[in-house]
Amino acid sequence: MAWSQVTHTFPPRSKGSYLVTHEVERAVEGELRKYKIGMCNIFLQHTSASLCLNENVCREVREDLTMALDHIAPETLRYKHTDEGPDDMPGHVKSAVMGVSLDIPIRDGKLALGTWQGIYLCEHRTYQHRRTVVITIQGEKSGK
Amino acid sequence: MAWSQVTHTFPPRSKGSYLVTHEVERAVEGELRKYKIGMCNIFLQHTSASLCLNENVCREVREDLTMALDHIAPETLRYKHTDEGPDDMPGHVKSAVMGVSLDIPIRDGKLALGTWQGIYLCEHRTYQHRRTVVITIQGEKSGK
Amino acid sequence: MAWSQVTHTFPPRSKGSYLVTHEVERAVEGELRKYKIGMCNIFLQHTSASLCLNENVCREVREDLTMALDHIAPETLRYKHTDEGPDDMPGHVKSAVMGVSLDIPIRDGKLALGTWQGIYLCEHRTYQHRRTVVITIQGEKSGK
Repeated sequence: MAWSQVTHTFPPRSKGSYLVTHEVERAVEGELRKYKIGMCNIFLQHTSASLCLNENVCREVREDLTMALDHIAPETLRYKHTDEGPDDMPGHVKSAVMGVSLDIPIRDGKLALGTWQGIYLCEHRTYQHRRTVVITIQGEKSGK
Repeated sequence: MAWSQVTHTFPPRSKGSYLVTHEVERAVEGELRKYKIGMCNIFLQHTSASLCLNENVCREVREDLTMALDHIAPETLRYKHTDEGPDDMPGHVKSAVMGVSLDIPIRDGKLALGTWQGIYLCEHRTYQHRRTVVITIQGEKSGK
Repeated sequence: MAWSQVTHTFPPRSKGSYLVTHEVERAVEGELRKYKIGMCNIFLQHTSASLCLNENVCREVREDLTMALDHIAPETLRYKHTDEGPDDMPGHVKSAVMGVSLDIPIRDGKLALGTWQGIYLCEHRTYQHRRTVVITIQGEKSGK
């Protein structure tokens, strides 16, 4: 039984949905490959961005997701918390509803993602923000 | 400290919300009962279906949830990604927002679900799809 | 490698979003500080309330979230399951979509929350309900 924990900071991005699977895998690849079976948690330390899993090929899926999130939490609702701009409170709602903590099983040294699954970082703010994740790996390491 | 990981495939189902608690428990029951305290992760390897927990008695709750999800991610939004039919992109949105990874604590050899909680598989596509989950169990086994 | 599991019951609250970070931390603080690296799972055993992470300062953010959730799952949809009142089925939808299980990494004896992150209990029912969580901590304890 072993544990590993690293912090990774994504470069600043403005509002949109971004495929970050490779970026996450690179941040932990030295460790990940040692685990035969385990769990990987990716935890985003922010309140107006989200993590989720979705389709890993088409750019249009990411664009449509961003658009659909504006339908789910539109800027036109009568928010009280408006000091930080019209995109702030919708961003909090999207983050609360989508979540910021992903748990992905590890199998044979890799994330056990489905064929079409990729890790998305959804940035809800218009202004570019630097976002940090804590990645925690635990499990049984492979025997020699 | 012990780990167990199995793959389970649900039979094909068309759009709807399905109570799959017993199906999941059966897939791991031989292992589950050995754990005194632990965590069970159920990870769906797909991008247009979801897992969630909800009311485990009334069929109408499942029907209403399916209907409400169509309100949250309607087919009438102006999606760009429409090649795979009008139910595809709404399915991706529902999956991204609801999530595909469930973590349930284990206590005394059972999932520590509340009285009214059941595991739902929400299929977002009209056409029947076979869906696979990776179930990972970890924890402390009971002493003899 | 160690495990700890406690049950905590929140006092009854009516519909709204509540910051419960300190309440959760107090329920596990004796244990939490022993862990150098680990994971904390908070699991709500109910189907018409939710857990999420969001902004930990402004009361207005919590009020706006509650309001936005009524936009996401309004009482005006044509639900079939209406026996328990107009706020019941929307509560189930919110709970299914937001989720009831939070995974937060542990680092140096504390929850590795971001500066602005707090734990929210979202109560979706108008009538006050007592809500119970199972809190499971696992990880490596600090050496002497």
